[in-house]
Amino acid sequence: MTIDKTPYNLIDGNVTSPRGFLAAGIHAGIKKVKKDLALVASDPVAQVAATFTTNALAAAPVRVCRNQLPGGRARAIVVNSGNANACTGEQGLADAEEMLRVTASALDADASEVFVCSTGLIGAALPMDVIRAGIATAAAALHAEGGGDAAQAIMTTDNGPKHIAATLEIDGKTVTVGGMAKGAGMIEPNMATMLAFLTTDAAVEVGALQGCLSGVVEQTFNRITVDGSKSTNDSVFLMANGVAGNAPLSPAHDAWDDFVGTVFAVARDLAWKIVKDGEGATKFVTVNISGAADDAEAQKVARCVGNSILVKTSWCGGDPNWGRLVAAVGYSGAAVTEDRLSVRYDDEVVIENGKSDFSQLKAWEAVLAQDEFCVNIDLGIGTGSYTLYTCDCTEEYVRFNTAYSS
Amino acid sequence: MTIDKTPYNLIDGNVTSPRGFLAAGIHAGIKKVKKDLALVASDPVAQVAATFTTNALAAAPVRVCRNQLPGGRARAIVVNSGNANACTGEQGLADAEEMLRVTASALDADASEVFVCSTGLIGAALPMDVIRAGIATAAAALHAEGGGDAAQAIMTTDNGPKHIAATLEIDGKTVTVGGMAKGAGMIEPNMATMLAFLTTDAAVEVGALQGCLSGVVEQTFNRITVDGSKSTNDSVFLMANGVAGNAPLSPAHDAWDDFVGTVFAVARDLAWKIVKDGEGATKFVTVNISGAADDAEAQKVARCVGNSILVKTSWCGGDPNWGRLVAAVGYSGAAVTEDRLSVRYDDEVVIENGKSDFSQLKAWEAVLAQDEFCVNIDLGIGTGSYTLYTCDCTEEYVRFNTAYSS
Repeated sequence: MTIDKTPYNLIDGNVTSPRGFLAAGIHAGIKKVKKDLALVASDPVAQVAATFTTNALAAAPVRVCRNQLPGGRARAIVVNSGNANACTGEQGLADAEEMLRVTASALDADASEVFVCSTGLIGAALPMDVIRAGIATAAAALHAEGGGDAAQAIMTTDNGPKHIAATLEIDGKTVTVGGMAKGAGMIEPNMATMLAFLTTDAAVEVGALQGCLSGVVEQTFNRITVDGSKSTNDSVFLMANGVAGNAPLSPAHDAWDDFVGTVFAVARDLAWKIVKDGEGATKFVTVNISGAADDAEAQKVARCVGNSILVKTSWCGGDPNWGRLVAAVGYSGAAVTEDRLSVRYDDEVVIENGKSDFSQLKAWEAVLAQDEFCVNIDLGIGTGSYTLYTCDCTEEYVRFNTAYSS
Repeated sequence: MTIDKTPYNLIDGNVTSPRGFLAAGIHAGIKKVKKDLALVASDPVAQVAATFTTNALAAAPVRVCRNQLPGGRARAIVVNSGNANACTGEQGLADAEEMLRVTASALDADASEVFVCSTGLIGAALPMDVIRAGIATAAAALHAEGGGDAAQAIMTTDNGPKHIAATLEIDGKTVTVGGMAKGAGMIEPNMATMLAFLTTDAAVEVGALQGCLSGVVEQTFNRITVDGSKSTNDSVFLMANGVAGNAPLSPAHDAWDDFVGTVFAVARDLAWKIVKDGEGATKFVTVNISGAADDAEAQKVARCVGNSILVKTSWCGGDPNWGRLVAAVGYSGAAVTEDRLSVRYDDEVVIENGKSDFSQLKAWEAVLAQDEFCVNIDLGIGTGSYTLYTCDCTEEYVRFNTAYSS
């Protein structure tokens, strides 16, 4: 990803920032008071790419969307919060399919061009009366500045809506990429309940969009963790409707890398927002692994460190002692030897080839006192590397999840 | 393991309950006030078996003990708490070896018959002056009722000492098995810093003891978790000195299974004590997996459920909703399908073949309100099974580990 050289501009936008997209977010009645149903629509019909959870017990909407995806075309995505429609058996599948039909009917579209996402409580049946009426209300409320409302309506335990947009010039035309996402617990996508929706008015050649999205997701949403839990409902969508009027993009187009870089920038911003708003989180930590035997080994180490509750609680306390960190490196299963191991907090040397100078404790403490810092671990063995974005684990996380019913 | 049929008697004992064992636990000065150095000795010299951490960054004492083990003979084990002597490089190895020599000298023994364990802060050098003097003090304090003091001296964050013993008749002789252990964080042995020391006055044939211990550890200490962190220092030792005067035991002896069952009973009691005293723990949960494709798949599911912070915080709150549980089953990597999945809390049906009846919520709540309960998960696919012993995750755990320097 050539993001550092990509001439994009991040703007305070959302899924309706690209032209040709409409959205709405309303209170249907799944939740008591808050908005709980979002609708994102494209006119004209958009190309669509998506990635879904790898959880073996994928929710009904995920299974329904997987069936829709080969069609490659999307008029709309309907999303409810408050109920995940997961582990709901045949009834859940029937309900998800009905959501497609009801949405298609409200938009005078074909059900094969509608997608559906749900997030919230696992195991309970959807209140379909409420949802049918809510879809009608949302369809009537669709408008070109509805992206903010939609970002509100997909929230569960999020402290606030997460959205962003970016613009880029292609063929003399302004192309815009918009996006929204929700976290904030059960987050270790690959895919978590993380939902993210990206929109663009770029014209993209048929077949090129999924490669763009899969590559971007691998480098962004798949590299974050809050609590190491892969949800049943994780989904990321990218819709491209071509309204910008550029020559259709593909890897053969000069601007392809810039376009992918711009999608990357929007996706990374949303992914980071999810970690920073992780339940109870007070610190945003980038775990950089290098010198592993290969990238897969580096990923093992990054996930062991980034998901260790002992490491994450030590970050919460700003404790610079590295014992828990090194223990996690050691039990990761990756090839590692003490005498080649080096660790830095930001640029401060903590361990160099297995040796540590505790007189530097104050410098380490200063790094860990920050709201954001990097933990750089070099195994000194090979050239494998991986980066994971994670957060600390606080009493607030436990208090919240002790009280919150999943 | 035929433990249910083993005619052992559990007694309120410790490592000096078997005849021929002496122990001491003293304050050497590694910690400010509390006891921090234990010595367990056998006269006559005992056979010894041991298992150690699988953490790739094993501590210096572990590496030294691995070298000692092929000798198969032990006069004594010296243990310090307050400092793990882990990630301490060449100096750490030299210090661990010096502890062998100093102990051997104090006991007029050979250094090849001494073992060493450390637990506590990772990364700092041992205060060897304090340790040398402490070993001399402990050697002078050795006595036949010192097991209680030794169990005190190996503690780190434990709320109290953990010890037990059991007796069994073999060949008309009373054989006793004693043990002590410490937890309480960085616990997912395979081997964690978990340390456990088992002693017996049984006579056991050369070569048979390690098989006994390895089998027992696999079914006990390797099946507990507090926080999913495998320590750099985990070690379990079994010393057998033959003072009971039975015919030497081996798998060919009629009483072999009973002997192994008795060791199992002592080890399981200590393992359960570690989970029940897990940092901040308020609930002891047995996760039973059945119906998996094979035992390895069952273990994957058990560890995903038993280490999920979302599941563990829900137990803390007594929340009977099973969404987090099922999500963890789904991301375990094991083969699982929704329509074959069944879950019970103790004997209460929660999910049967993918279907759940939420009208039973009160009955589920009653089970989860208990201090101890079982979560029984049947994947309905094959005959693989696994049991893991775990605890809840509380605000107290986070508060403690935010403040405690590792």
